[in-house]
Amino acid sequence: MTRYYEDVEVGETIDCGSYEVTKEEIVEFAEKYDPQPFHLDEEAAKDSFLGGLVASGWQTACLCMRQNVDHMRDRRFAGARGVDDLRWIRPLRPGDTLSVETEFVAKEPNETYPAIGNVTLETIGRNQRDEPVISYRALGMMERREPIE
Amino acid sequence: MTRYYEDVEVGETIDCGSYEVTKEEIVEFAEKYDPQPFHLDEEAAKDSFLGGLVASGWQTACLCMRQNVDHMRDRRFAGARGVDDLRWIRPLRPGDTLSVETEFVAKEPNETYPAIGNVTLETIGRNQRDEPVISYRALGMMERREPIE
Repeated sequence: MTRYYEDVEVGETIDCGSYEVTKEEIVEFAEKYDPQPFHLDEEAAKDSFLGGLVASGWQTACLCMRQNVDHMRDRRFAGARGVDDLRWIRPLRPGDTLSVETEFVAKEPNETYPAIGNVTLETIGRNQRDEPVISYRALGMMERREPIE
Repeated sequence: MTRYYEDVEVGETIDCGSYEVTKEEIVEFAEKYDPQPFHLDEEAAKDSFLGGLVASGWQTACLCMRQNVDHMRDRRFAGARGVDDLRWIRPLRPGDTLSVETEFVAKEPNETYPAIGNVTLETIGRNQRDEPVISYRALGMMERREPIE
């Protein structure tokens, strides 16, 4: 069943599954988007403030996005306006498993586009020790089944 | 010259250059991190709210990160605590050129780590028509030349 803006219930929480991140993909991402030593090179990372290789925080956010998309394929999203309060709480390291949970915390009509509704989603990613790694609040948009007149 | 936390001047603005994004890398990123139809498939995107293929907002943020890293290699960053007020203002489309500018807007000692100072950086990415595409405020950390006693 395709789900639209009208079908969102505030308070609904989605288990978006988990993902084990490898050293190879941490380095591959860093080479393209965030080539800092502590994301690229294990030896250099050991001497850094972070004490070892860690995933780019942007990659951690992207991994959450992938889990969100995979677990909400029946919903008609239409992009997002932005993100508030993104926090990198703990490093994500090679071999860590990121588990993602997302809650719809608010919804309201979009004042510009009658075919769209705004939804606010809170995402938390935790590691295999159930410690929070990342959290943020996304300002999403969804298609309406029935555009506002 | 290596630049540390102590060397940051609030108000300093860095021109982080520009980058032309291709359709191929928009699709490649989307396949891995954000597989929604309007990031993956030109035909499907035409029928969507966005009216054509657009880069994932997360990819747009990652492209800004890359420009930031490339243009601040002399500075000793130590990761980031998070991001506030990330806004996707306009879509970034295939063939668009993203120009990135980053300003140091605040600095203060880190209360937990004497070897680290906190810096706040405002980043804006604009397209080839000088229209804002993305903006955010990053809560960065930098190494101190002299740790606090």
